[in-house]
Amino acid sequence: VKLKVLLATLSGLVSAATVAGPIEDQIRFRQSAYTFLAWNSSRIKSQAVDHPETFDKDQVIAAANAIAATANSGLGALYGAGTEKGIGWKTTRLKPEFFQQPDDASKVGVAFIVEANNLAKVAESGDVGQIKAQFGKLGETCKGCHDKFRIKTD
Amino acid sequence: VKLKVLLATLSGLVSAATVAGPIEDQIRFRQSAYTFLAWNSSRIKSQAVDHPETFDKDQVIAAANAIAATANSGLGALYGAGTEKGIGWKTTRLKPEFFQQPDDASKVGVAFIVEANNLAKVAESGDVGQIKAQFGKLGETCKGCHDKFRIKTD
Repeated sequence: VKLKVLLATLSGLVSAATVAGPIEDQIRFRQSAYTFLAWNSSRIKSQAVDHPETFDKDQVIAAANAIAATANSGLGALYGAGTEKGIGWKTTRLKPEFFQQPDDASKVGVAFIVEANNLAKVAESGDVGQIKAQFGKLGETCKGCHDKFRIKTD
Repeated sequence: VKLKVLLATLSGLVSAATVAGPIEDQIRFRQSAYTFLAWNSSRIKSQAVDHPETFDKDQVIAAANAIAATANSGLGALYGAGTEKGIGWKTTRLKPEFFQQPDDASKVGVAFIVEANNLAKVAESGDVGQIKAQFGKLGETCKGCHDKFRIKTD
């Protein structure tokens, strides 16, 4: 099932727009997904990196599961043609390069899914050091996409 | 672990605000979580209720898992004291009654988690009828909270 979902995500990245509606809806939905990811990431960063004395295994597992399920949810469907312009909750920061370099877009998407699934597995161990290391790998996949496909702000 | 997470969620509903930051952040994070839930719900509604001819088992499983993981993520931490007023992506619609009736607030929260977890289980079966029925039960828990604790819009 995992592989199939991953393929469905990729197929979403390419064909897109079959599931979500108008452009502004897609942008709002994906901004919501990434903001939800940011909240869950911030909790793991706080508990496994910045303040390990506050580490709460169940909260970190819940956050890691939320990140993995979001990564596996088929976000590619929210990147339909034309969604490099538009306002969801705010103006999208997606670069047109996302559509001009579909192989690279798929690559960063798959890397994110793989490392998110790995983090969910590692979280179950409750080992703060391993979680911190795997959280770092996940963060690299976020950065990889942001550097290539997200407009920088000041 | 499931029970522990559920208890952590309840404890979040009561004590709150230990994890998330300023009021506007909490509101923005929870609006993002519920908008992400809305996207996933819309896909299940479309594929299992309105247009069963488009049913795609893997997509429905992915959406149901995303809903369950979001429900289990500890959203209670985003309902800190004072968050019945404020602007996240938009002005919050949370009623002050949410804080005045903590037992009822916990009850609707737990009902949502239970039915979301049930939907994730039922989705694995790939049985459209069962998924539709369980999706209906989940929807009742959404409505139960909205009726009590969300300001109506025109």
